[in-house]
Amino acid sequence: MSHSPTVPRTDGFHLPVFPRSLPVVYHPHAAQTEFRSNAWVRRYLESCCTSQTQLMRLLRQRVGLYGPLVAPLTDRDRVLALADFYHFVGLIDDLAADHTGGLGASPGGARAAFDRITAEFGDPGSATTPFGLAAADLWQRMSPDLSSRQQHRFHQSLAAFLDGIAAELPYQLTGTVPDYPAYIDIRLASFGCDFICLLNEYAAAVDVSDLSRSPELRAVHDHAMRQMILVNDVLSLRKEHGDPMNAVRVLEHHDRLPLQQAVDEVAARAAAHEHRYLQARDAARRQLAHRPDVDAYLRAMDHLLAGAQEFEYLTPRYLGDGAVWDGSTTGWVSPVPADPAAANGLPS
Amino acid sequence: MSHSPTVPRTDGFHLPVFPRSLPVVYHPHAAQTEFRSNAWVRRYLESCCTSQTQLMRLLRQRVGLYGPLVAPLTDRDRVLALADFYHFVGLIDDLAADHTGGLGASPGGARAAFDRITAEFGDPGSATTPFGLAAADLWQRMSPDLSSRQQHRFHQSLAAFLDGIAAELPYQLTGTVPDYPAYIDIRLASFGCDFICLLNEYAAAVDVSDLSRSPELRAVHDHAMRQMILVNDVLSLRKEHGDPMNAVRVLEHHDRLPLQQAVDEVAARAAAHEHRYLQARDAARRQLAHRPDVDAYLRAMDHLLAGAQEFEYLTPRYLGDGAVWDGSTTGWVSPVPADPAAANGLPS
Repeated sequence: MSHSPTVPRTDGFHLPVFPRSLPVVYHPHAAQTEFRSNAWVRRYLESCCTSQTQLMRLLRQRVGLYGPLVAPLTDRDRVLALADFYHFVGLIDDLAADHTGGLGASPGGARAAFDRITAEFGDPGSATTPFGLAAADLWQRMSPDLSSRQQHRFHQSLAAFLDGIAAELPYQLTGTVPDYPAYIDIRLASFGCDFICLLNEYAAAVDVSDLSRSPELRAVHDHAMRQMILVNDVLSLRKEHGDPMNAVRVLEHHDRLPLQQAVDEVAARAAAHEHRYLQARDAARRQLAHRPDVDAYLRAMDHLLAGAQEFEYLTPRYLGDGAVWDGSTTGWVSPVPADPAAANGLPS
Repeated sequence: MSHSPTVPRTDGFHLPVFPRSLPVVYHPHAAQTEFRSNAWVRRYLESCCTSQTQLMRLLRQRVGLYGPLVAPLTDRDRVLALADFYHFVGLIDDLAADHTGGLGASPGGARAAFDRITAEFGDPGSATTPFGLAAADLWQRMSPDLSSRQQHRFHQSLAAFLDGIAAELPYQLTGTVPDYPAYIDIRLASFGCDFICLLNEYAAAVDVSDLSRSPELRAVHDHAMRQMILVNDVLSLRKEHGDPMNAVRVLEHHDRLPLQQAVDEVAARAAAHEHRYLQARDAARRQLAHRPDVDAYLRAMDHLLAGAQEFEYLTPRYLGDGAVWDGSTTGWVSPVPADPAAANGLPS
């Protein structure tokens, strides 16, 4: 490589090719679910947004496709509830990412707001805030299909997610980069892994609460969630570059890797977790062969991982506002330009 | 109404509720077909665009959903070919709508360009221009599924469409408003009605060439195509207000109707054509009961009308660049604001 006359570019990185060994399936009602979920956003989340601009940007991110991609085999009511739920947490994530004002400006303010959301999520009758009313609607639609144990986990998992987001804020506000193990711990919460797994049961219409901390499923979850986090870190890097809560930044900082090597290393770790997920999944299937619900749950988990990754390729949340996916899964990625709208040809 | 204390607004119109008596069905691969078609656009149409801005605006219009909406029952290869074809004609339509330069600036220039496209469409080996190469790809994928009679009609219908667009230009360049019968005649060509009907056979995998000018199907087509044109005129009015080639403008000008009354009258005519389409369709089904291919063709035509209308509600082509459909099918519509991007919250 030292013979190459070309100087390596440092203004971005080459997006590595991921193994994608799991089946990408779109729900047969994916397109119309997205539009129906947009209607829910307009009704329930408009007053949670700080501006019409923020609402439209959320809708342009195509978040309504996340549910149809991670739960392609579920029924129409459940896939719509999932689409709405992921719109709900996506907006919370957006608000927390705004460190100049609002939710993301101070850990104390975020914690207070999140405590209110958590209280209202578990007690829909008390909901009065816009987020509380949205949460109450989701709870009322989804909880009848959950066992009381799952309902408890749903409530706890939303609290853990909001705690995780709040725990990220001090790092982001000070630019402090955690080390890799600390990073993974925080991200397992802020990525919403508990509700992701719970909602995978909801999608598969099963209740594996009794096994969710068992050694068999624990190994499955360990690798599945790390695969999801690390794939997300690479595919969101265009938007998140510089954010200390990203494994690429962690390796740049603590392992002194140049950007491209850090990207490649994170992608390699994601691929390794995907491989070990497959092994853990097959082992769990053998060990729990007497449990058809586990089989359905694991099949749904394959689609969860594959679908989340497909979404992360296609979403303007990561491609840049105004961009449209053309199916590319590799290529040169430049960090967010000064004017992302102009770069995507949006009229000014 | 004269007692009302409110002064009627004149800065827009109320979108009337259409009957929508036909079944809206999305192809089960609608979402992924759109992304796959976007890849085709990137490959074949990028060099037909005058700028990256134009390409991105085309992709943001969601035209890749038109095929999956008008042909929800067809197979995956055909629905993708239809999505690509409608991207192709959609771009031609966009280019012709630019009267400040390029294709739409002069009838002579447009005719010359369209003659080249027509020649290359029928003789793919000769294709050299970007539009010719795109046309050649479409021809090579679609023509093997068409009979030689249908192939001839396909070629003729594209020529008729391009002729129709060129015939509109003198009206648009001079602001001359045709009367209603003249308007309908030109629009039957420029709307692409011949290829729309032919591609409905392609979607249904039938060949009804022998009947396409029969009295039975003629009545079906007469009402189906007028319903499509008039619904389109209302749903595209936000974008097209002022364009002389729109039935609303025709009625404003020749019948001296105020905007809202003209809109309501066009919508009423569309509804009447839809009703008469249903009658003509049922009559054709009875009269041609010995022809199962006609039955399949008519079922596909129901979806064609319903799907085209659904597309016209959802497309940012008509909602405005940067807007996202939330399922609304009625409400107040303002003509295009001075800065449509800003109105939709696009970053500047």
